[in-house]
Order: sequence, then C-alpha cells, then structure tokens
Amino acid sequence: MSNKQTGAALKLFSLNSNPALAEKIAAELGQPLSQVSVKHFSDGEIQININESIRGADVFVIQSISDPVNENFMELMIMIDALRRSSAGTINIVLPYYGYARADRKARPREPITAKLIANFLQLAGADRIVTMDLHAGQLQGFFNIPVDHLLAIFVQARYFISRGIQNDVVVVAPDHNGVKAARNLATLLKAPIAIVDKRDEEVAGNHDRAIQDEAATIIGDVAGRRCIVFDDLIDTGSKLTVAAKSLKAAGATEIYACATHPILSDGAAARLQKSDYTEIVATDTIMVPNDKQFKKLKILSVSQTFAKAIDLIYHNQSVDSLFSKHEI
Amino acid sequence: MSNKQTGAALKLFSLNSNPALAEKIAAELGQPLSQVSVKHFSDGEIQININESIRGADVFVIQSISDPVNENFMELMIMIDALRRSSAGTINIVLPYYGYARADRKARPREPITAKLIANFLQLAGADRIVTMDLHAGQLQGFFNIPVDHLLAIFVQARYFISRGIQNDVVVVAPDHNGVKAARNLATLLKAPIAIVDKRDEEVAGNHDRAIQDEAATIIGDVAGRRCIVFDDLIDTGSKLTVAAKSLKAAGATEIYACATHPILSDGAAARLQKSDYTEIVATDTIMVPNDKQFKKLKILSVSQTFAKAIDLIYHNQSVDSLFSKHEI
Amino acid sequence: MSNKQTGAALKLFSLNSNPALAEKIAAELGQPLSQVSVKHFSDGEIQININESIRGADVFVIQSISDPVNENFMELMIMIDALRRSSAGTINIVLPYYGYARADRKARPREPITAKLIANFLQLAGADRIVTMDLHAGQLQGFFNIPVDHLLAIFVQARYFISRGIQNDVVVVAPDHNGVKAARNLATLLKAPIAIVDKRDEEVAGNHDRAIQDEAATIIGDVAGRRCIVFDDLIDTGSKLTVAAKSLKAAGATEIYACATHPILSDGAAARLQKSDYTEIVATDTIMVPNDKQFKKLKILSVSQTFAKAIDLIYHNQSVDSLFSKHEI
Amino acid sequence: MSNKQTGAALKLFSLNSNPALAEKIAAELGQPLSQVSVKHFSDGEIQININESIRGADVFVIQSISDPVNENFMELMIMIDALRRSSAGTINIVLPYYGYARADRKARPREPITAKLIANFLQLAGADRIVTMDLHAGQLQGFFNIPVDHLLAIFVQARYFISRGIQNDVVVVAPDHNGVKAARNLATLLKAPIAIVDKRDEEVAGNHDRAIQDEAATIIGDVAGRRCIVFDDLIDTGSKLTVAAKSLKAAGATEIYACATHPILSDGAAARLQKSDYTEIVATDTIMVPNDKQFKKLKILSVSQTFAKAIDLIYHNQSVDSLFSKHEI
Amino acid sequence: MSNKQTGAALKLFSLNSNPALAEKIAAELGQPLSQVSVKHFSDGEIQININESIRGADVFVIQSISDPVNENFMELMIMIDALRRSSAGTINIVLPYYGYARADRKARPREPITAKLIANFLQLAGADRIVTMDLHAGQLQGFFNIPVDHLLAIFVQARYFISRGIQNDVVVVAPDHNGVKAARNLATLLKAPIAIVDKRDEEVAGNHDRAIQDEAATIIGDVAGRRCIVFDDLIDTGSKLTVAAKSLKAAGATEIYACATHPILSDGAAARLQKSDYTEIVATDTIMVPNDKQFKKLKILSVSQTFAKAIDLIYHNQSVDSLFSKHEI
Amino acid sequence: MSNKQTGAALKLFSLNSNPALAEKIAAELGQPLSQVSVKHFSDGEIQININESIRGADVFVIQSISDPVNENFMELMIMIDALRRSSAGTINIVLPYYGYARADRKARPREPITAKLIANFLQLAGADRIVTMDLHAGQLQGFFNIPVDHLLAIFVQARYFISRGIQNDVVVVAPDHNGVKAARNLATLLKAPIAIVDKRDEEVAGNHDRAIQDEAATIIGDVAGRRCIVFDDLIDTGSKLTVAAKSLKAAGATEIYACATHPILSDGAAARLQKSDYTEIVATDTIMVPNDKQFKKLKILSVSQTFAKAIDLIYHNQSVDSLFSKHEI
Repeated sequence: MSNKQTGAALKLFSLNSNPALAEKIAAELGQPLSQVSVKHFSDGEIQININESIRGADVFVIQSISDPVNENFMELMIMIDALRRSSAGTINIVLPYYGYARADRKARPREPITAKLIANFLQLAGADRIVTMDLHAGQLQGFFNIPVDHLLAIFVQARYFISRGIQNDVVVVAPDHNGVKAARNLATLLKAPIAIVDKRDEEVAGNHDRAIQDEAATIIGDVAGRRCIVFDDLIDTGSKLTVAAKSLKAAGATEIYACATHPILSDGAAARLQKSDYTEIVATDTIMVPNDKQFKKLKILSVSQTFAKAIDLIYHNQSVDSLFSKHEI
Repeated sequence: MSNKQTGAALKLFSLNSNPALAEKIAAELGQPLSQVSVKHFSDGEIQININESIRGADVFVIQSISDPVNENFMELMIMIDALRRSSAGTINIVLPYYGYARADRKARPREPITAKLIANFLQLAGADRIVTMDLHAGQLQGFFNIPVDHLLAIFVQARYFISRGIQNDVVVVAPDHNGVKAARNLATLLKAPIAIVDKRDEEVAGNHDRAIQDEAATIIGDVAGRRCIVFDDLIDTGSKLTVAAKSLKAAGATEIYACATHPILSDGAAARLQKSDYTEIVATDTIMVPNDKQFKKLKILSVSQTFAKAIDLIYHNQSVDSLFSKHEI
Repeated sequence: MSNKQTGAALKLFSLNSNPALAEKIAAELGQPLSQVSVKHFSDGEIQININESIRGADVFVIQSISDPVNENFMELMIMIDALRRSSAGTINIVLPYYGYARADRKARPREPITAKLIANFLQLAGADRIVTMDLHAGQLQGFFNIPVDHLLAIFVQARYFISRGIQNDVVVVAPDHNGVKAARNLATLLKAPIAIVDKRDEEVAGNHDRAIQDEAATIIGDVAGRRCIVFDDLIDTGSKLTVAAKSLKAAGATEIYACATHPILSDGAAARLQKSDYTEIVATDTIMVPNDKQFKKLKILSVSQTFAKAIDLIYHNQSVDSLFSKHEI
Repeated sequence: MSNKQTGAALKLFSLNSNPALAEKIAAELGQPLSQVSVKHFSDGEIQININESIRGADVFVIQSISDPVNENFMELMIMIDALRRSSAGTINIVLPYYGYARADRKARPREPITAKLIANFLQLAGADRIVTMDLHAGQLQGFFNIPVDHLLAIFVQARYFISRGIQNDVVVVAPDHNGVKAARNLATLLKAPIAIVDKRDEEVAGNHDRAIQDEAATIIGDVAGRRCIVFDDLIDTGSKLTVAAKSLKAAGATEIYACATHPILSDGAAARLQKSDYTEIVATDTIMVPNDKQFKKLKILSVSQTFAKAIDLIYHNQSVDSLFSKHEI
Repeated sequence: MSNKQTGAALKLFSLNSNPALAEKIAAELGQPLSQVSVKHFSDGEIQININESIRGADVFVIQSISDPVNENFMELMIMIDALRRSSAGTINIVLPYYGYARADRKARPREPITAKLIANFLQLAGADRIVTMDLHAGQLQGFFNIPVDHLLAIFVQARYFISRGIQNDVVVVAPDHNGVKAARNLATLLKAPIAIVDKRDEEVAGNHDRAIQDEAATIIGDVAGRRCIVFDDLIDTGSKLTVAAKSLKAAGATEIYACATHPILSDGAAARLQKSDYTEIVATDTIMVPNDKQFKKLKILSVSQTFAKAIDLIYHNQSVDSLFSKHEI
Repeated sequence: MSNKQTGAALKLFSLNSNPALAEKIAAELGQPLSQVSVKHFSDGEIQININESIRGADVFVIQSISDPVNENFMELMIMIDALRRSSAGTINIVLPYYGYARADRKARPREPITAKLIANFLQLAGADRIVTMDLHAGQLQGFFNIPVDHLLAIFVQARYFISRGIQNDVVVVAPDHNGVKAARNLATLLKAPIAIVDKRDEEVAGNHDRAIQDEAATIIGDVAGRRCIVFDDLIDTGSKLTVAAKSLKAAGATEIYACATHPILSDGAAARLQKSDYTEIVATDTIMVPNDKQFKKLKILSVSQTFAKAIDLIYHNQSVDSLFSKHEI
C-alpha cells in the first residue's frame, strides 16, 4: 500500500457484526486490523476499549447494522464516541449493510423514519464519512450532510451470472413494484429483458418482505419457457421470493435464480428458500450468514475487493468513480 | 371555522408562485389571505414586508417551488426569515410542489443532492412544519427532522377518472421503471391491471423527463385493445409521456390518457403534448399553469380542498389521517 | 386530575421495559396509558406505531434503559422520532433507570463516555425534558441542555426502614469510596452514623460492581455489635454487596441489610444475594425484576407515587420542589 | 506558485456570474480554472457536475451574488453542496460582490435580514471561509462564525486617482449620511478634505439608492470651485449619484467624479449616469458589466490582483495583512 | 395589566447591573420583580438561586452589560442557564445597554468580533428574544437568529430638547464620521440642520471614544453663532465629546449640549465633562450611573416607560410598532 | 522539539491568569510564547490583538479560570473567537484550573449548572480540545463532545511526600464524603490507610468549602498517634481544612499535612491556614498565588512538566497514556 503524503496513518477496525468480511478487506489492503476489545455485560451494556493510539489517524470502522440490529448499531455508536474523544483524525464508517434502511418514510400516520434517526445518530456521534453498499433507496444518501460513498454489488453479481453462462436468454424479474429500476439495471448488464411480479393486494405501506406471504401473484412480462433471475436488494424472510418463484413457475418459467445483495435470512428463510423452486440463491457477504442460516442452495459472493478498493482510494484522496465503471464486468 | 383553544391566531399568506391556489384554499377555509408585499428589484434582489402583526400566530405560507424555481424558493426563504424575526408562533410551509425534488441522490460522482439542500435551508430558515403533496420520492420526508404532512392527489385523480367512467377496463401504465409502485396504487383504486414502459437505453442517472426523447420503447404488460392511463408524479418536458403514448399506440392501445400531479410543462411541453396521441392530459393546480403553457387537451383538477382540510386539521391539532382514507373516493 | 389551562392534552405511553411501573403510575394519575404497538422483527429491527393522535399533546413516555439495554434504548429513540414527526406538543421522557450511567467519564485511555452519548441521542431525537431517578452521578444532569427533573428514592427508602424500626441504632455503610456521600444522606435521615468498606486493590477505573469480587475488605468506622444497612444506587452482579456483607460480618456486625434503588441483578446476582449474609435486600421498581431474578430476600418498594406526582406537577407547570421535602418522611 | 507543504491541491472554480474576473485571477495565480458544468433547465432548476476529483483539495469558488442575484446565489449553494459531498478538503468562497448586503438590519417592522440569511446558508451549505470585498457594512463579518477575509478596493481606487493627478486639491464627497467614514478613508489616502450630501427627507429605513430620486440636496462642507470625487460602495440605479452631482454643481463644484466598488447599474443606471454631470464614473470588476450596461463615462479598474494575492496567501497559510498596507499606494 | 389568553404567567427579574431601571419598569407594568439571589463568592464565582417557580412562565430578565461588563454578562448567562433548566416557558432578555457592541467587526488583523460572541452566547444559553435599545450599529440585529426588538431613545431625547425650547435654531452635530446618520435623524425630529466633526488623523480601526484625545478637529457645516447638540449613541471616556466641544467653540458655536443614550462615563469622564464647554450632558438610564460618576451637568432621562410598553406588548403578542411612531413626540 | 510531519506550526499563548506557569511550560517545551496583547478598558471591556499570524497552526492557549474568574473566562472566550476568525488550524485550550467546576449539578431547585455552561461556551467559541487537570468531578469530561485530556497532579504530589519520607505510616484523610475515592488513590500510591472527616450537619447541596465552618467533626477511621495527610482537589476558603485539622487533632493525630491541586485561597484562607494545626499545606501552580495570598506554611509544587509533556505528545499525535503511569513515581 502506498504511503500517504500528509502522514496520517490508516487504521482499520472491525466490530462484531461481520469479522469475516473485515478480515478479507484487511487482507486485500495488506493492512492488519487494529485491536479493540468489545465487552457485552450481562445486563446488556457494551464496553469498548481501543487498544492502540489512533490520534490523528484516518480510521475506518467496518460494521454492518445486521441481526442483532440494535446491538450492532450501539456497538458502532459507542465506538465512534470513543474514537472522537480519543482524537481520531477522521472517522470513516464502513456499513456493508445499513439496517433499518426500509424505515425510510412515513408509510402510515405516526410512524418514525428510523433510517433517518440512524443517519442523524451516525453524524452526531462523530462520523465524517459513510461508505456503504446498495442502500434500500438511493435517497438515503440525502439523509446525510457528510459524504456518502455508495458502492454497488451489481458488477460482482453480473460477472457471476455471466461466468455461469446465465446471460442474454434470461429474464430479470422484479419481485415487487419498487424494484423494477434495479431489475432494469441488471438486465441491461446482462442484455436481457425484464418482468415484474404484480401483487395487487399487498399493503400500501409496504415495508417489503416483512410479512409471510403465501398466495401467488400475476407476472407482467413474458417469462414462459425462459430462465429467470429474481433480483432484489435484500432477502429477509424469503417469503416474497418464494411467492415470486411460485408465480414464475405458474407462468411457465423454466429455471429460476434469485439474486440479492444483503442476506438477512430471518425467521425461517433458510428452510423456506431451500425447499423453494429456486435453483440457486445468490447473495453477498455484506451480512455474515451464521451456520444455522446457511443452506445448500445459497451461494455467497464476496464484495471485499470492492470495499478494499474504495478504502484505498478514499485514504489516498482519489475518486472512487473507477469502481462504477461497466468495464468492470 | 371553529376557534382554537390556545388562542393563537391563524394567518394564511400567499407568495407569488401560485396565488390562484392560495385564494382557493383561503376561500375553503373562510379565512382571508394576510397582506404581504413582495418587491423584486431590478438587480434581482427581493424585498418582503409583512403588513400586519403575526406575533404568536400559527402562520401558513403557501408557495410552490416552481418555475422560476430559484426566485420562488428565495421568496420563501426570505419570508420565513421575516416571520421568525417577527415572532411568529409557528411557521408552517405549504409546498404544493417541491422543486428540485428529483435531485434526491448522487446519481453520478460529485453531484449535489439539491433536494436535501432545500430541506436543510427550510429548516435553518425557521420552518416548523412542511405540508406538501406527492413528493417525487417518499424518502424526502426523511430529509427533514421537522414534521412533514405528505398529502396525496391520488384520491382526487381516481375520483375524476371514475366520474368519467374510465375504470376497471383500463390499464394504468408506468412511464418508467421508478413509477411502477405509483401506477399500482392508482390501478388498485380503479381495480385495474398495470403495464410498464421499458426503455432500455436510458441513462442510469436518470433525472427523469429532463432530456427530449424520441424513440419508442417496449411495453411490458398487456395493453392491446385497451384504454390506458399513463400515470406519473410530474410532467416536465412531456417527452417521456409522448414516448409512452407512441409505444402504447404501437402496442395496440385504443385510447390513451395521461395523469400527473405537477404540471411543470417546460420547454415546449404544451405543443408537444397537444399534438400527441393523448386524448386528455390530467394534472392538478399544485403548479399554476400560465396562459402560454395552457393547451386544449390539458385538464386541471384542483387540490385546494385537500390542502384546506389539512391546514384546518393541523391548526386544530387534529390528525390528518382522515385525508388518506380510501372512503374518500 | 385537574384540567390544564392551555388545553394541551396529557398522554402517557409505556414501552416494553417496565410496563408494571407504568401501569401503577397511570393508576395514580387516573390517566390511562395511550396505545402504541411495538414490534420486534426477527432480524432485530423495531417498528413502532402510535395508535392515537398526539398532535399538540404533552406526551410522557415511561421507559427504563434496563436489560436488554440496547433494545430498550432503541425502542425509546424510535418512539421519540415517531412522536416528533407526529407533531407532539412536548416530549417528556421518564427514565426510572438511566442505563449506561456508569460510563460517565474516561477512566482509561480511549474509552467512550456512553452516558453522554445517551444524553446527546435523547436530545437529538427530540426529547424536551428528562424525568429520572437517582442518577449514578448527579453530574449527569449536566450532560443535558434540556431540563432534567432528578427524583430521589431516598425518602421512600428511609420511610421503609423507619416503618420497620430500623433506625438510630444502625450504621449506614458505603460499599465503596464513591458512595460515602449517599450513605451520609440516608444516615442523616435515619439519625445514624456511617462506615465505609475500604477495598484497596480495586482497579482505578472502577465501573463499580462489574467484576465478580471475592475477598473481604477493611471496614472503616465502627460496626461491631451493630445492625448495618449497606446503601448503594444500584445492584448489578451483587458481588460488591456480598464482599461488603462478609467484611461487615468479620468486623462484628450483627444484622445486615442492603438497600439500593435500581435492581439490575445480572449474572447470578439473585443466587449470590439469596445465599449471602444479608437479612433483606431492599430495592425499588425502577427496573422490573423478571421472575427468574426474583429471590426470597428481595423486597421491592414502589416509586410509582413519586413519579406520578412529578408528572402531575410538570404537566401543570408547578414546581417539583415539594417532592424533595424531608417532611415527606 | 510554490508548493504547499501538506500536499493538499489548490482547485479554482468559476461559476457563471463573473467568469472574466475568475479568468484574470486564475491567470495571476498561474493556476487554470477547474472544470464544472452548470446547466439551467427550462423550469429554472440548476444542475451542477464537477468534472474532476477534488477529494482533499483546497477549493476556491469564485462567484458574485450579482444580477440575477437569486440564480447566482443558488448556483453557489448547489456547488458547495456538491463539493462537500465530494469530500473537498476545504471550501473557500470568493464573493467579489455580496448581494443582499444592504438588507442587513430590520429597518421597518417585520422585515427580514436577508444578508444574515445568506450568511447562514453559506455556512450551513458547508463553506469553510469567505473571501469578499468592500461589504456594505463591515459588521457583516460578524454575521459569520467562519473566517472572513475582507479585502478592500480603496488602494486600487486611490492609486487610480493619484495616477490621474486627481489628489490633494479635490474634495471627497459622501453621497449620504452612512458613507462619511468611507469618504474620510479615501480622503486620507488622497490627503483631501471631505463633504457630505445632506438629504433631509429621505426615508429612515434607507436601503440606499433603491428609489429613483430627483430633487437636489444640501451640501455640507466646502466644494465651491473645487474638483469632487463622490465615493460610495456600490452604484445601483445611479439616482443617488445624480442627485449628488446636481447638488455639487449647484454648490459650485468644478469637475465631478464618482467612484464605487460594485457596479450594479440596474434600472437605467447607464443612461442616467452617461447624461449626468460626472466627468467619469470609476468602478471595479467585482461585478461583470454586461454590454447593455456599459457606457462611455464608465471606467472599470480590476481587482483581480488583490484577489489572486489573497488566495495565494490563504492557500499557503500566510497572513493577508500585507494586502492592507498603505504602502500599497 | 390585562390577562393573557394562554395563561402563561409574566415574570420580571432584575440582576445587579441596573436595579433602579428595573424597579421603574416594574412599577410602570404594575408587576413586582420576582425574587432571585445572586451571590458573588470571594474567588469571583457567581451563584444564582431563583426563589420562585417559573415553570411555563414568560420570563423577562433586565440586565445591562455595563461596567463591570464581564461580571454583569456572566450573571446574565448563568441566570439564563438556570431559567432554561427550570423549565421557563420563554426567556426574554432585556438589555438596555449591549456591552461590547463596538467590537462588531475585524478592524485590524486577528481581532475578535466580541459583539458576535456575546450574541452567540445569549442564544446558546437559551434566550428566546432580545429587547434592547440603540445598538451601536443596527447590523447587530443580524448577529442573532432569534427576534430582536430594537427600541429607540430618540423620541424621549427629542421630546426633552423640545420641552426645553431647544429646537429649529440648533445644529445637530455628529462627533465622528460614523454618527452622521444618527445626527440626521435627531435633526429631522427637531427640524434642524447638521454638522460633522471631521478628525482626520484618527485611527482607521476606530473603536470610537476609547483613547483619550486632545487636539481640536475641523467642523464641516455651519455652526458659527448657533446652539449645537452633539449627538452620539454612548459616552465612554468623554474625550471625543470634549474635542467636539472645543472644536465647535473654536468654530463659533454659542451654547453646546451633548446628548447620548448610554452613559458609560469611564476613566475620568465625569470630571472631564463637568469642566468642559458643555452647558448640559443629556443621557438616559440604560446604564446606572453610580454616585462617584455623577456630575452636575449630567441630566438623566428615563427610558423605563419605553421598555415597560415593549414588555407589555410582547407579552400580549402585539406589535411594538407603535413605539416607533413620530407621533410620540 | 522534533518537527511535525504535517508541517503545522506549534503556537503557545498565555493569557493573564497564570503567566508564570505558562512561561515554565514554554521553557520545558523550548518553544517561546507567542505575542498577544490583552487590554482591559476602564468600563471592563477586554480587547485582544494577536500579534503574529497563526493561520493553519496548532495553537495552545494556557489560561486558568481562576480569580477573577469571569474576567479570565471572558479573556479566554474572546481569544478563542479571535483565533477562529484568524484561521487557526486547531485551537487547544489548556485549563490548568477549570473554574465553576463545583457548579456541576442542580443541588437545589432552579439552580444553574454553570460548569456545563462553561463547557458549552468553550465548544461554541471554537475550542477543538481541552487539556485540564484534576477536575472537581471526572464526569465533567462528559460535559464536552470534543476530546478532553484530563491530567493528574497525584503523581507529582505522591512523589513529593515520598521524597519527604512521609509514606507508609501516614493516614490519608478525606475532608468530606465526596473525597474518599481520591483519598484512596493517594493512599494506594503511598501504601497507606485512609480516614474520613464525617460532618453530619453540612448542607445537602454542598458546594464544598464555600461557607466558613467552625465546629469540629467526627473522624471515621483510625488516626490516633499517626501522621495525617488531608487530601482534596482544591483549597478555597480553607475552613473545611481547618475543621479537618481540628478534628484530627482531637482524634489524636500527631502531625497533619494538607495536600490539594488548586490553591484558590480566597477570603482569608492564607491567614486561616497559616495559624492552623497544619505542618505544611502542599498545592500546585495550576493557579497563580499572588503575593498577598502567600503564606509561610504553603508549599507549591509545579505541574509545568506534566503539561509540557502533554502538549508535546498531543502536537505529535501521540498518546498521553504514558503520563498516567504509576512508574512515574
């Protein structure tokens, strides 16, 4: 790794949500993770001690706000407080997965906008920059006044399908009405057409994929006799995906894949998806999948290289544009 | 209008962007508009004088951030500054149209998020509450830390089509990939199916409807031999709508309507839409359409009643939920 | 309950940490708890819906930041966000127990001050006032810029011992060096002398009562042949208390009581204290003690009346001084 | 240009208000202007794209808030938002002319203080420093909490009159009551006496030079048989200046010059001044004078060197004191 | 005093700088001063106890930031902190004299702008409104984001001279270049002409009246054989006034008066002015003149009625415009 | 002193409260104090001029908030304002003594928390970091959101007693209930036991050492026939110490020393302590003791080396941990 002109040291920290990804990022960067001890007391309080000086350093903290969401979020907040009070030069927060991102507007009267609360707290605690991936809505960048580097997994995902020969002759399917633009983007990289799962009776408010859904839905677009990739940003309970598969099957699809960035896999998702009509479920390592949520059809792609490159460019004050080039594929 | 218990007076003000709507709202409320003088000097500076005491009053200022966007926005900012310094009790900003709403995320490197800048300025200037309608993305509510009452024109719009007998047998069409959820919502009220205009080669960044587009696009969904309503939040140059109409015609649609909330109608939109394949273009009066942008096929529905009811409920500290009831239709 | 002049309604809410205390407070006030639904999704995210209009109301939310600390804290933060966006008149946070209060200074290099983080978040989220009890250090009031009403359990506690005839001839014992002033205060109410448990080798940093401690300590002051009340603000693992009892026994104390406000009782505290040398352990209901932490020697006093009186006085804009009168005893 | 020790790059940007001055400043610095594209859409919205990386750089943006004031101001605000979100190191705003500076206090009830609004917005958007010239009132520096480098045109102006031999035997005339101190300053540099135009009936509020004024005024001080320089900070409609000239002529002045820093020249000023009693009107290039406002008697001095020196000193962390030396003359 | 509709109580407090004025204001309002105890310890620390409940009240604190400036300012800051933490409804600060007002811009490199620091501190501490009189520069209103009610003594002053028959045939004289506009205002009320004391060699920086000055200056304007009123906002050391008198005498003035709002009278001013050429020195009671600064020629007018009317209007949410009417004279 | 990598210059400034300590610190660092002129005008206003450029520099300002507390505090605030406006790189405030630290909580109804006000003002004015010593309560660190380096005098103090052979066989005595933990810390360094002065009737509010106290108190712990060191953080009037000595004498102590960090010595403290039962009173030079407060029994230890080392480490972005090592003794 090249030296920085201003002499500020680079320090990488991992908290507890996704140490495997953090280790991979560190390995890509050739920069060991710095030491921090995080204790969870029996009453639930968290205590953090940073074990080396970080005065004046450019600090990057890697932490997904994933299950257990509130624990991981508070770990991060307390870490930022410690870093600020210990005179870190800059505090850069790497959020491979931004929890609560779906609570991004008032869908019903008297609802909170928790995604904004998270953004406000990150800024108040002392973050100088956010590096994240595939936000549930791009507008979340505007919840911040500090710079947000918004990375995309789509190039890694597209490369995977291309490498598997799943291209051109597939249909990319949006599993709900909000995901059509994203489906269009993957379809464009794969030079494929799109289709939409049109589920009428879903609730307006629609924090998607929360409720366990059963009935099939209408497919808009032509999928009969074709392979399909159902594309979404995250997989929560998986029931939205299983409805999509059932509906696609009914509409004549031959082989069905699912692809998403964030594998939340809550509430029986693993069993539900393993026994579903999918050939393979492709996700990334933005969220660590614990052993009890692993299942045979699940394929995890790593986004560590994307994050490592971003950190390196940011540390050296260079543009991260290059990460968004379609030449990447 | 019933009296308020705390004794704070209600004061309604209109600035220059949409006095016609303001007058209608005032008439609905039975509350005259208060006097304010707004001068634009020849160097472009704006001077505002409020001509009656507003100390302690609940003030509502009605102003769309519409063409000329920057002039109307600065009028509003300067008005808020004057109200705050003059000891208004609460400052409630009624934004029938929220300009710059499409600049809501970084779509390309080094872009601003101007919609957030607008939100920050409104709050910094001293606004206590925003009342607005059909934001380009619901997430804009999260750009604020103050309460946002987000009203919908969809009930007024659905009622209109129902009153015209255009229901059940129509298809509601999303003119681009981002608008599918909205199309689904209107379709549900009309008990109709949906279709999507799938334009592949459009740019990723996609501030929609900015560029003048020509070529036809693919239609996903079944429109042959059916009436269609192309549904969007706003009409800017109108070229996205004309592409949609052309494509729907090619796909066999019989009669085509367009429906949107905000009639920006910039850059030749009137001529373009008048000579298009549309039978009627339905919009609302959130933006005042000047004479030179009027055209024969344009039908304007008024949302004044919705805003008047909202102001009345807010002033009396009552929930605005009732405005979102489907019973409204 | 008398009416308020300004007409703002009073609304009481309870979240999930201590519904029993909230119910008691509501009963004292003759004011039912308002309805709110709090869902915890399987990935850990919390969703809150407030089920009645609170526009313009004086809202009091009762929630202890107790085990599970981070869950309960995030429930509270999200509730405040929902209240603010729903136009609550004032947001008053009743924190019978202020979690993380012991992390109130940097005791070691590069430590966070989590108690301040909590204070900053409460204020940022939108709290207008804090009502709390027996803060670990009175200085925490200064972590806030908003009003803090700091209530005391000591009058309830003193009354209990007096009612039991444990007075005058007892010694009030501080279990560590930081608690001497508090011991002096109880001793003064009971007209008793004090003593101190002097444990030399304890670590400087001293988040007290965290580590499981075994060895006896020196007693400073005269306890031989006397009854003792060991007095502290909270009971966490209970090991500090058991060391105190052992040391007092060794120093000739006859009967030993423990008294504290906040019964955290983590990590085997119940078993440890039940088998200890204490005759009785007296605490309050600021923290709800679940069944598996109950034990025979534990006596819980209720502070609901104190909180109810405080809420009533605050709502009616009257001074809470009367709650601090020694005539209370 | 010498290298900076910390390695932060210098980036100069010009927006649309005064590209000619920006080019001159860039030429003085030997540093090309960086590329930015600014689009004004037909509905009035502005879109900005910065075409090169500015991460970590010391950025200077040159923009006068001149006619069209609100357009130019919003260009600047949006540019600052883009720079901040793109991780600029420091954002330095060069405002040769600070529009709205005359709205610097409440002169009438319920007036805004728009100059403060501008200051608040500049700071909120993310400016780290302001570099400006001849503020309408020096107190505007105090509207900011960030550093303001307040440059003066008076040395350039005095040098010009000295070079023309107009010195010693002239009288420097304040065209209104607020401008006497400034007149004294120029007079001191020219070793000349002063006089004042005393217009009794002018309104108290007095945003000067806004209204078209006709009648002559009294002159206080001795001008009979002498050459005069009427000195002001800006020329708006020019009617204040023409009244001054008429009055001076009536009082026996021989030859009359006008001198000001900012040539706003609105509302027929060019014609009014060309046919006035002035021999020459001297202004600077802080505001670009478009062709239709040019007139024969107008002489423009350039302040590009002053700004270039200031930027160079600031970039190298050196004091700008040297720019205020009277030895400059 | 009429009752307020919302039921918020009015509470008046006086701190130590000007109890006499506070008592007069209270008497005018028929509202007794509330009790507060202010102790100054021997190390200089100040302790404040408010002796009655002010929860929810509209509190007005009367305090001039006069000699000893820093003591009086800190008294005020600590009082505001106590009021905020004690749940005052609104905190209104009545500053008859705004100390440090002359430090309102950077006149020399690396100077503070202390008047802005004072404004920032007042707002940060928790003030909701400022009521003040005759600020050294009107622009100081823009140092605040909260409402500032800026009262004027000029009507009281003009009435006094009219009542004394000193009118029409007098000349109002500005003692320096910055004061010409103010002189013009008094002259207009008295229907009199103006003149200016033109002192060339005074320093540019010019915190006026600080240095002891000796030499006479030039008079611009016609004063020979006429009575003069030298008009300024404040009297500090008095040396500027004595220079003015000497110069006016030399220029042939017959009788000379001085008139100012704020009698600072520091550093021998009393002796200096008593032995000067003035017939009378007229000031107001915005600053309390202690016995050792009283002198025979000093005439104090009271502005208590103006402040009392302002407080009454503000408390009742009525406009203070009426206080600025020329009909007042 | 070694060079800094980033090239930012180190600048040390002293204001007026403790120039002797500042000179010593500067000497230790081998870095001369930079020039600043501080004028106190006769009306009490302070004017500050910094006489050399500090653009981009790491500035350290040394100032105790000691008697006269408000003057010294305002000097500091005005200095910070000047530094910020003059583009200092970082502003580091060295507060050997933090005045008002005892007003750190509401001890009585409607009290201010002046220590927090001080903290808020320091941050608002523009301080980037606080370096201080022996805060009255460690929790004051949490009054700040910026880094606080909290240094300790205890190693210097312990070394002194060890060097005098006063060790092991002494008892360290806490003069009140709040000081027991501190006494324990010194006792641990000296390997000594502790005792406590138990004064029952002292007021609950307890800003300690303010009132002049006379009567003796009970001693808890064994002091008969032993040497004692009464240990506290500060000495104000000294009456708490004299009560302690009297009580210790009565309890049979042989030789009595007092030791504290901050020698406020107000209100006759010197005479009171000189004639007391103490053999020696040991304090440090965090507060300059003027000649009229010097007395024979007073021994002043210097903490200049501790501050100099801290400044050196901070400037070079190194951890200050090493200053807290017990190996120091």
